[in-house]
Amino acid sequence: MSAGKLSVVGLGPGDARFLTPEAQAALDRAEWLYGYAPYLDRIEVRSEQRKIPSDNRVEAERAYEALAAVVEGRRVAMVSGGDPGVFAMAAAVCEQVERGPEAFRTLELEIVPGISAMLAAAAACGAPLGHDFCVISLSDNLKPWTLIERRLDAAAEVGFAMAFYNPISKARPWQLDSAFSRLRERLPAATPVVFARAVGRVDQRLRVSSLHEASGEWADMATLVIVGSPATRVIERPGRPPLVYTPRRA
Amino acid sequence: MSAGKLSVVGLGPGDARFLTPEAQAALDRAEWLYGYAPYLDRIEVRSEQRKIPSDNRVEAERAYEALAAVVEGRRVAMVSGGDPGVFAMAAAVCEQVERGPEAFRTLELEIVPGISAMLAAAAACGAPLGHDFCVISLSDNLKPWTLIERRLDAAAEVGFAMAFYNPISKARPWQLDSAFSRLRERLPAATPVVFARAVGRVDQRLRVSSLHEASGEWADMATLVIVGSPATRVIERPGRPPLVYTPRRA
Repeated sequence: MSAGKLSVVGLGPGDARFLTPEAQAALDRAEWLYGYAPYLDRIEVRSEQRKIPSDNRVEAERAYEALAAVVEGRRVAMVSGGDPGVFAMAAAVCEQVERGPEAFRTLELEIVPGISAMLAAAAACGAPLGHDFCVISLSDNLKPWTLIERRLDAAAEVGFAMAFYNPISKARPWQLDSAFSRLRERLPAATPVVFARAVGRVDQRLRVSSLHEASGEWADMATLVIVGSPATRVIERPGRPPLVYTPRRA
Repeated sequence: MSAGKLSVVGLGPGDARFLTPEAQAALDRAEWLYGYAPYLDRIEVRSEQRKIPSDNRVEAERAYEALAAVVEGRRVAMVSGGDPGVFAMAAAVCEQVERGPEAFRTLELEIVPGISAMLAAAAACGAPLGHDFCVISLSDNLKPWTLIERRLDAAAEVGFAMAFYNPISKARPWQLDSAFSRLRERLPAATPVVFARAVGRVDQRLRVSSLHEASGEWADMATLVIVGSPATRVIERPGRPPLVYTPRRA
């Protein structure tokens, strides 16, 4: 029974080029692999390993099941896109460790970091998160929209660049445009805005715009949105895409 | 001459276990490798590759030299600890691309992301950055301390967890304690504080404390400090170190 262990593993933004050796080793050691189905699809496993896919929005149940399997002695990997610690499975697992049976608090748990979407998106366009910044989920499923508004206002007022996770979905179609509208009252119209879709995958798409022009129509569930600070700059380059960066004196 | 290329490469937090295949490939392709000496020391190179180490605080000069070498046709890697986009070399390179000669804006530039210290530190203790958070450099070398204070106040008021880079140094001995004092006026005394030193290295050391007790003496230049939000929780575990996490409803 004591062999059980849970590894919460960050796969990075997409392609295996961004999977660390530490994460690969954790996947290799696992008997059972839990995760949101599209993330599990990215992984090649040996015939004796078992994938247990689940839908999104069932993070709590998935975490509980994985922990219960560890208590039964299994070596389990819980996979997460990007980094498991940023709006992903590590917090969901910790919640179940806290709420669940005592055995959940004695088992072996490791969290293996990964390249988060914001880092991959920033690298793809320059260094927009090169100085003080904040990271906000625009989903109001688990917190009130008014709290998100207060965070947007505060970030604009003190000059944080911003990375938005969960900017839009079919069930949340208006939040991103509402955020842009609110920021337009507090930030210069020329503030750079980056839409980075499917970064680190073959269908990666990057769009550099301004707060004045930015539209929620340019984002979907696979998009990471970065809004610059008033200090963020765009460098036009002949024959190459523009570079976006926030200077170190910001 | 057209073969020149600059890759700004994130090495991750320390051990090669956290170096991505993409970053390793970029290092392998380089003829000349620039960087802060301790980061270059981590890398094994082939006999025909050349390391060009420099001191810290000379980021602008290092970036300029590397770009100039690319203009001369060299394949160059600029290495950065952690992620190059977070308080590291990517912004310094972009600054020189903008300010330097026209040739700097036509050359080939790629930025390869890495596991940043905050992600490694968070993974080592749970998921303290599991919901909205901000990332602040406590160095007032390049910005006024009053601006840092405004950012700390705003972050506390709207409930961001916080990751502090550059928390302390011999030349900046009081800033971290000053930040803790300021936050004590705005956050609960029990707010979790994590000191993560040398994460991802063999001498990694982790200390979980509270805002009430936190002391700048527990940090040095190699420490990443995380201050929770009012929602951040500590889970005590029998026989294991505590877990720190910020719930998804925060």
